[in-house]
Amino acid sequence: MLDRFDPRLDGAFDPLDRERLIGRLSQLLPPDRLIVSTESMRPYESDGLAAYRSLPVAVALPVDADEAAVVLKVCRELNVPVVARGAGTGLSGGALPFPGSVLLALGKLNKILAIDPVARTARVQPGVRNLAISEAVKPYGLFYAPDPSSQLACSIGGNVAENAGGVHCLKYGLTVHNILKLEALTIEGERLTIGSDALDTPGFDLMALLTGSEGLLAVVTEITVRLLPLPADVQALLVAFPDAGCAAQAVADIIAAGITPGGLEMMDELALTAAEKFAHAGYPLDAAAILICECDGAASDAKAELAHVAEICRAAGASEVRHAKDEVERLLLWAGRKGAFPAMGRIAPDYYCIDGTIPRRRLPEVLARIGELSREYGLAVANVFHAGDGNLHPLILYDASADGELDRAEGLGGAILELCVAVGGTITGEHGVGREKINQMCVQFSTAELEAFAAIKAAFDPAGLLNPGKAVPTLARCAEFGAMHVHGGAVAHPELPRF
Amino acid sequence: MLDRFDPRLDGAFDPLDRERLIGRLSQLLPPDRLIVSTESMRPYESDGLAAYRSLPVAVALPVDADEAAVVLKVCRELNVPVVARGAGTGLSGGALPFPGSVLLALGKLNKILAIDPVARTARVQPGVRNLAISEAVKPYGLFYAPDPSSQLACSIGGNVAENAGGVHCLKYGLTVHNILKLEALTIEGERLTIGSDALDTPGFDLMALLTGSEGLLAVVTEITVRLLPLPADVQALLVAFPDAGCAAQAVADIIAAGITPGGLEMMDELALTAAEKFAHAGYPLDAAAILICECDGAASDAKAELAHVAEICRAAGASEVRHAKDEVERLLLWAGRKGAFPAMGRIAPDYYCIDGTIPRRRLPEVLARIGELSREYGLAVANVFHAGDGNLHPLILYDASADGELDRAEGLGGAILELCVAVGGTITGEHGVGREKINQMCVQFSTAELEAFAAIKAAFDPAGLLNPGKAVPTLARCAEFGAMHVHGGAVAHPELPRF
Repeated sequence: MLDRFDPRLDGAFDPLDRERLIGRLSQLLPPDRLIVSTESMRPYESDGLAAYRSLPVAVALPVDADEAAVVLKVCRELNVPVVARGAGTGLSGGALPFPGSVLLALGKLNKILAIDPVARTARVQPGVRNLAISEAVKPYGLFYAPDPSSQLACSIGGNVAENAGGVHCLKYGLTVHNILKLEALTIEGERLTIGSDALDTPGFDLMALLTGSEGLLAVVTEITVRLLPLPADVQALLVAFPDAGCAAQAVADIIAAGITPGGLEMMDELALTAAEKFAHAGYPLDAAAILICECDGAASDAKAELAHVAEICRAAGASEVRHAKDEVERLLLWAGRKGAFPAMGRIAPDYYCIDGTIPRRRLPEVLARIGELSREYGLAVANVFHAGDGNLHPLILYDASADGELDRAEGLGGAILELCVAVGGTITGEHGVGREKINQMCVQFSTAELEAFAAIKAAFDPAGLLNPGKAVPTLARCAEFGAMHVHGGAVAHPELPRF
Repeated sequence: MLDRFDPRLDGAFDPLDRERLIGRLSQLLPPDRLIVSTESMRPYESDGLAAYRSLPVAVALPVDADEAAVVLKVCRELNVPVVARGAGTGLSGGALPFPGSVLLALGKLNKILAIDPVARTARVQPGVRNLAISEAVKPYGLFYAPDPSSQLACSIGGNVAENAGGVHCLKYGLTVHNILKLEALTIEGERLTIGSDALDTPGFDLMALLTGSEGLLAVVTEITVRLLPLPADVQALLVAFPDAGCAAQAVADIIAAGITPGGLEMMDELALTAAEKFAHAGYPLDAAAILICECDGAASDAKAELAHVAEICRAAGASEVRHAKDEVERLLLWAGRKGAFPAMGRIAPDYYCIDGTIPRRRLPEVLARIGELSREYGLAVANVFHAGDGNLHPLILYDASADGELDRAEGLGGAILELCVAVGGTITGEHGVGREKINQMCVQFSTAELEAFAAIKAAFDPAGLLNPGKAVPTLARCAEFGAMHVHGGAVAHPELPRF
């Protein structure tokens, strides 16, 4: 699959002197922090987007920022690309090794360095797991809000690189809204401290710039996260609808009524049926769509808010409104939602998870159009997503062993993303651009905007060594992609990149 | 005062051909959109930091983005600096004209273009006044949260340039947290669309990068702001303390208890006494410090939260806790706070408003140290500030006509800012760096960090034409400042820039 990784980058790097690179790294790192054998590097050849695989020259496993700086300096000196990797749970190939690169795996930087319950902050290394932060600060009545579905496994450094979201980002914001300060290394191995313990910081907002930059600008070695008080009460509601359009309308109505739920998730018939069979969450199998709505806050407040949500849903045509009567029922509702992705494995050999965002008000029409596209391409699509913030996750079901189905799935995925852009949304919600959506960036942005991205990339990393071929396309790539596109003749649904 | 504006920038721009510049602009702009006479340009020679004054070559008043682009293109072609200006209420000299520059005044771009109550957004031009947005969306039960004290006069474009805050930013965030999308012009006059109507956006976070960049990277011509539902209830509390340290401790305790008030403001004895005489807000004149705490949300919630705050304040040693019994009393409490700055005019001929942030937990010791510094420098300091987010506004009282007092005031201001940095805070909370604090940036940031700033500046504006001499110091400036500093002999309180 990776026979031609990114020919537009050919010549950007010196011919690889493998022996010299490994020799230098072996001198500087203890043996247990450097992997060079093909078999030992296998676990690192892909991230959560496992269809794309490639081996690096070496995997470096630094234990602290100084060792990471050493690796970067060597790579800079020898003009060798570097790909930083967190827990490898990313879904867009952001941590996919570049051929001839060093993979800088940050999993050994896994300490919680300090918890300050008064300032409501924690200082952590990038390899700390997302959920481990909330577990560590729970005794102080605090939690770390962003909660990607992979929170048990994913690391906070990867969350920063991808600006991760999750069920609760509707109310509590994305990663960028929940961090205060970063320590990062430039490709020169120089240490930057950006952001501050205080609310605001002078100078350009490098913290926001680095957050979500997918390892293209610097390597984060320490993160100060903002913590929130655990809500006094959490209440959840399951609402069934006889029609997916009504459910989508209810979402728009809830937000328009001035309610910001802690979470507001939607599943369509295909998704809820599969999830129910998998997790036995008690979902109504006769519904065309369900919403799960969670409200938190003071006890009286959460209950009142949820009652208002129930009322709005009934007005929008809900066939059933069920209040989780206790914590067991509430967690069961979520177990079904969280099991929706693995549940797909029971109804189709393969699925392709799309991640795009749209303005919430466009939900009903976009869902209808996805249904049409599904019929056009002859592939089923299950919808399970963060409805409240307009972050779609259509799951395209296909059989990779059937001739042409992967092509059709990729074509359908591209069409859905383009639909997101057409209604004023974006080609990625929380999974990043990575390798997967690099061509769609050419659709999303104008030449002037891509030039601004390229100039920022060059400002941090003039030699283009940090995670090449990801996140931000070269203008040459877009020109070629555009040309291919015109060549193809028809209107516009860019194919996903094929390597 | 401006005899030597920034000699480090000498030679950066071509010798000014005034006639040619004015000739070109006159060809391209109608006469009512170009001011070139000295007397007519007087209103533009300073912003809210009126001690610094300088005249531009011309003031351009475009009515739309296309006209603004024309001005930028001419300046780029002739290598003439450009300073963008909003309402001119900024307090750090960010809109101070650079000698030989064109001042690009955006006040005529003052239309609210669209309000979308379902998406809870408004699309506005940069010259729209901050408060005008909340007024326009009030019929929909919405408001725009950031509320700088100047909100009646300041414009949203200036708010974006400075990443403005205000009383409510503790709960609702700064400008960057309340905007979704920007249209901006590069120095080449090219239009960029950054951010999106959806929650997240792919590529580098240029929206956050531009927000707070003080006109150094691009000129914002359109802003999509996020709107919030008006809270059902707002309750306020006045708390008096016999000691400022106890009040500061109460602030830390309130936040540590998991409460995030809508506003949490502190005034010390000098400030509250002056404010009371000015606004007759009913402040207790025997208190050493007062807190004003506002809670909002559902009615039951706001009341319960405020009761909890009252309890914490009593435990911290409050001598009086007074609940505003109705909206009239609540607004009166705020009238005193909002009148605190003008009230200073009654007790001292001049005041110098400092703006720095510190981690909240350091409040008691920082206030004590400011008291010591005040005695050392022989100048009274009134403290009135956003305590909840650690954003200090010490007001240094002095008499500019008394020999050496301005020098002492500036020295004391520098010492206070350095204290902020020393405890882990920053040299600016919400007023920006501008012209005023350019030297303190050398204290706040390392060479590697300043190099990163410079590289980003060069990525957007390689010729350095946009607002030169502001916000981000050149390395040459820091080297000279550092040298001066060593030359002076003693330890470290950088002087404020003297021109």
